[in-house]
This record gives sequence, structure tokens and C-alpha cells, in this order.
Amino acid sequence: MTHTIVASEKKEVIIGFDQPFCVIGERINPTGRKKLAAEMQEGNFETVKKDALEQVAAGATILDVNAGVTAVNPNETEPPLLVQTLEMVQELVDVPLSIDSSVTSAIEAGLKVAKGRPLVNSVTGEEEKLEAILPLIKKYDVPVVAISNDETGISEDPDVRFAVAKKIVERAADYGIKPQDIVVDPLVMPIGAMGTAGLQVFKLVRRLREELGVNTTCGLSNISFGLPHRHGINAAFIPMVIASGMTSAIMNPCRPAEMEAVHGANVLNGTDQDCANWIMTYRDHTPAAAGSPATPVAATGGRSGRRGGRAARRGAGA
Amino acid sequence: MTHTIVASEKKEVIIGFDQPFCVIGERINPTGRKKLAAEMQEGNFETVKKDALEQVAAGATILDVNAGVTAVNPNETEPPLLVQTLEMVQELVDVPLSIDSSVTSAIEAGLKVAKGRPLVNSVTGEEEKLEAILPLIKKYDVPVVAISNDETGISEDPDVRFAVAKKIVERAADYGIKPQDIVVDPLVMPIGAMGTAGLQVFKLVRRLREELGVNTTCGLSNISFGLPHRHGINAAFIPMVIASGMTSAIMNPCRPAEMEAVHGANVLNGTDQDCANWIMTYRDHTPAAAGSPATPVAATGGRSGRRGGRAARRGAGA
Repeated sequence: MTHTIVASEKKEVIIGFDQPFCVIGERINPTGRKKLAAEMQEGNFETVKKDALEQVAAGATILDVNAGVTAVNPNETEPPLLVQTLEMVQELVDVPLSIDSSVTSAIEAGLKVAKGRPLVNSVTGEEEKLEAILPLIKKYDVPVVAISNDETGISEDPDVRFAVAKKIVERAADYGIKPQDIVVDPLVMPIGAMGTAGLQVFKLVRRLREELGVNTTCGLSNISFGLPHRHGINAAFIPMVIASGMTSAIMNPCRPAEMEAVHGANVLNGTDQDCANWIMTYRDHTPAAAGSPATPVAATGGRSGRRGGRAARRGAGA
Repeated sequence: MTHTIVASEKKEVIIGFDQPFCVIGERINPTGRKKLAAEMQEGNFETVKKDALEQVAAGATILDVNAGVTAVNPNETEPPLLVQTLEMVQELVDVPLSIDSSVTSAIEAGLKVAKGRPLVNSVTGEEEKLEAILPLIKKYDVPVVAISNDETGISEDPDVRFAVAKKIVERAADYGIKPQDIVVDPLVMPIGAMGTAGLQVFKLVRRLREELGVNTTCGLSNISFGLPHRHGINAAFIPMVIASGMTSAIMNPCRPAEMEAVHGANVLNGTDQDCANWIMTYRDHTPAAAGSPATPVAATGGRSGRRGGRAARRGAGA
């Protein structure tokens, strides 16, 4: 069984087919958040702190941390800011972190300060990236997100994306990195622009699991880009992609519809033992409160309150 | 491609892997509804009419009709009541009907009056049932729901349930009935009582599709029996079972969470062309209205209002 171990100083998270779906909180990321970028550049980390606490309370078990506030001279400016942000977050919350940067020097700076066994986000199939990132993965003995694009960009052909993922896994093996330390992102396209985007990714995830034996992740909300009521599309996508074998996602855990889909899919996927987390989370749920946030309990912290133990009779059958 | 054709006098519904998920409205069924049973026995069909109209408005494309109001002398009392109910419903709405009874004489009486090509619900793997129902299926050239239990009851072993389904398909072939006219119900167990119930049914549905090439259905809400916030479990189950290949369900279409899951899964499964039905249904959806009923449009009636056509950039990636 493929187990990707990600850890902070005090907490270990296992990403795996037999584990609850791993929710990687995406919010600490100034990309597309001008206000947050400005704050971080000014050395103001109030929003970062708020996002860290809220995401953990909402059920994220790993937090992604990105400090890419500027395109100007990032090789110099990003490493110290990423280090500062990582240190701030790991002091505040005890979940493992994902070091998210496109700047190699920032990733290495982050690896020097992040405690435990952080996830690195990310390497791609580009030669330059492989040669820069894989030695760090080996040196620090950490897992890495492998995005299935290369120098030619993101292929619309899922077979090409599979081939890129396979190449990364093989190149990692050359460095002595095991498949369980590669978490492949097969790249999710917006379904509004490409009607086959869902079927593509379901098939890809299944192949990645069966043929390469790797865990998988994705930038989840991409699927609903451009559509109305995106939470509804996201909430349907989550159970489908989990049924296909995906084991984690980089997503916003502060959305109740999406987290309800995660909790429900865990129950149905057999990774919420005795439905304990579901029962703890939703035992007091009333129809009137539908759509409002429920306070989730940690996946490992729930105890079963009551059991739905009787066998049901088939209501509509003969 | 397996296409099960179900039709009323004026409308045809195709159940198939390349079709939108077929929602069979379950509400016209006095089982467990004492008030409805009493009304029907008194010849009062107001609730039946209301249920018929509401279910079609909510998006059901087939209506199940059951008139099993009493266990006393059903061979005499059920046929005329089922006939009366079917006639009432098909006068009121134009969707195809499912003739639901455990009484063979009631099914045959129903087949004589139901217009078009109704679905028969159901046959099982029991010898007596096979010999009673399959000749009617052949004689009236209609499709049938095949429930995968036999004289020994419902097996907890999915391989046994698959074998029972296979037996029914083979026996049907002996009568000249084609696999596309068999819609297998693999039987959904309550996940609260059996933690593997989800994984079992996902695997079974996949095998039924790949090995027998048949469409599938289920009494959907069984999965959440005994658990709190059942709609949340049902809404996660629907996309998962659709991703596994299920093509229809007997369910309550008047539940917005469940229908949103159906609409979302159709988008992601590639059976909602250009997301047209999703956009028509949810274009005016606001977060404040989350959890409140949306008025769905018929799966075939929607036109695309706007497109989410631009490519998304990966928010959390490198």
C-alpha cells in the first residue's frame, strides 16, 4: 500500500488509498489575492494567521504555504519571505506544511526551516525543474507534488500527461526517490471549457494508481472555473475523483459544501471507520441549517456517538 | 452502447452510459407511508397527483408507481388499484412509468393499461419470480429491473450478488430478452451497518457494466439509512456511483441536495452537453440560497446561456 508520509514537528499525516482524503488548505497564497500580497510585502501576517487557523479548524490536515508576492527579483525576495511565512505558520498550528514555490532557492530555504517532513509543491516534467528539485527531495528526504506538464506546456491529451507523470516517477527513481514520495497532480482542466475534463481526470487518476502506484492531488476548484454555482460542481467532483482513486487535493477547506462532500466520500470509501467522523460532524445537523457551515471534527479525533446499525428495507422495491 | 428505452405515449427516456443519469421518482409508493396507503384505499388520489406533479417538476424523468397498500389478499386488491393509479398518473404527466409490484397479476394488469414502453419493477433471481415475470417481459416487450437476490435472500457477498444478476440476464436471454432490457439493481446496503457497502457497490456496478454490459439502478437512499444528515451521504454517494457506471436510481427527486449532485455528476460525466442544463438550473444561484431548492430544468430542455470558456490557471500550483 502506497503511503506518503507528511509531517510537522508533532503531527504525521498519511496520504494513501486506505486513508481519509487528505485536504491541503490552499488559502495561504498571494496569487490572485492582491490585498494579501500587499500585506505580506509590508510584513503584515494577520491574514496569513487567520487563514492558517481557519483552515485547520475547517478540517485541513496539511497547509500549503506560498509567498510568491512579486515577479520582480523573486530569487532574492521570495526565499526570506517564504521562510518567515513558514515559521509563522508552524508556530501557530501543528499540521504539516506544503512548501509551495516556483523558485528553487525559496524551496531550499523553506526546507531548511520547516520542521518534520514537509511536502514540496512542486516539480514538473521540465528538465530544468527535474534537475533543480529532485536533488533537494532526495537530500531532505521529503515528498513532492509532481505536476504532469513539461517544456511543451500542459497537454490536452491525457495519455501525454500520464507519460509526463511516468517520466517524473522514473527520473525520481534515478535519484533514489521512491514512488510513495511522489504525489502526482494530473492537472484538472475546467469542465466548462472542455467537456471531457472530468472523464479524462477520472481515467488518469485510475491509471496513476493502478500502473504507477502513486498518490495523487489536484488544484480542485479548477474544474468549475467559469461556471455558475461552482461549489455545486466542486462538491460533485470530489466524490467522483475520490471514487476514481485520488487521495488528496489542494482546496479551500472553509467551504462547507466541499468539506461535506469530502466527509461523505470518506464514509462511502470506507475510510471513516464506523462513520465516526460523519456522526460527530453532522449529528446535530438540521435541514434548516443546510448550506451553513458545520464545525467539522478532525478525522482522527471523532468518536462514534450512535450507530446506524439496523438493516434498511428497500423502500421502493418489490 | 447499451440503451434501455423506456417510454410513455409521448416521451421516450434512454437509460445508458452516454446519457444523463436517469432519475426514477420513488414517491408514489404507500410502503412506509400510512397516510398515503389509507388515502389510496379510500380512492383518494390527491397525494398521488401532487407527488406526480412535484416529482416531474423536480426533474424525475420516470415515475415509479406502487400501489401495495395491503398485505391482505393483494392478488385480488392490488391489480385494480395499481391500474387505477397508473391511469391517473399517465393522464396527469407525460413521463414514462415504472410498474412497481411484488404481485405478478398486478404487474400484468398494469402492463395492459400503461401506454408506451413502461419499466417493470421487478424480477429477482428467485425461480418462481423468473418464471412468472420473464414471460411477461417478453410478451409485452418491456424492460425490467432485476434485483440481485434469490431464494437465499440478499447475500452480503458482492460476488454472489453479481452471480445472481448474471443468472437473471442469462435466463432472460433464454426467453429472447436482450441485456439492454435488463436494468440490474445490485442492492445497496446501509453504510452505517456495513462499512464496505460503498466499495462493494462501486465494484459491482463496474463489473455489471464491463462484464454484462447492463444498465443499473438502485434504491438510492438505503445507503444512508440510520445516519444523521442523510442527504449529505446521499449527495456524496450519487457522484461516486455515477463515476462507477450506474445509470439510474429510484430516488426522491424533491431533495435539492441529491438533485444538485445528479446535475453536477452529469456535467462531470460528460452527459450535460456544454453544461447547458447546469447553467440553466444554477445561473442565478447565490451563496445565500445554498441549500434551498433550485428549480431544475429538464435535462433535454436546457439551452446554454453562457459558457465558462476560458482556461483557468492553477491557483495553488507553482
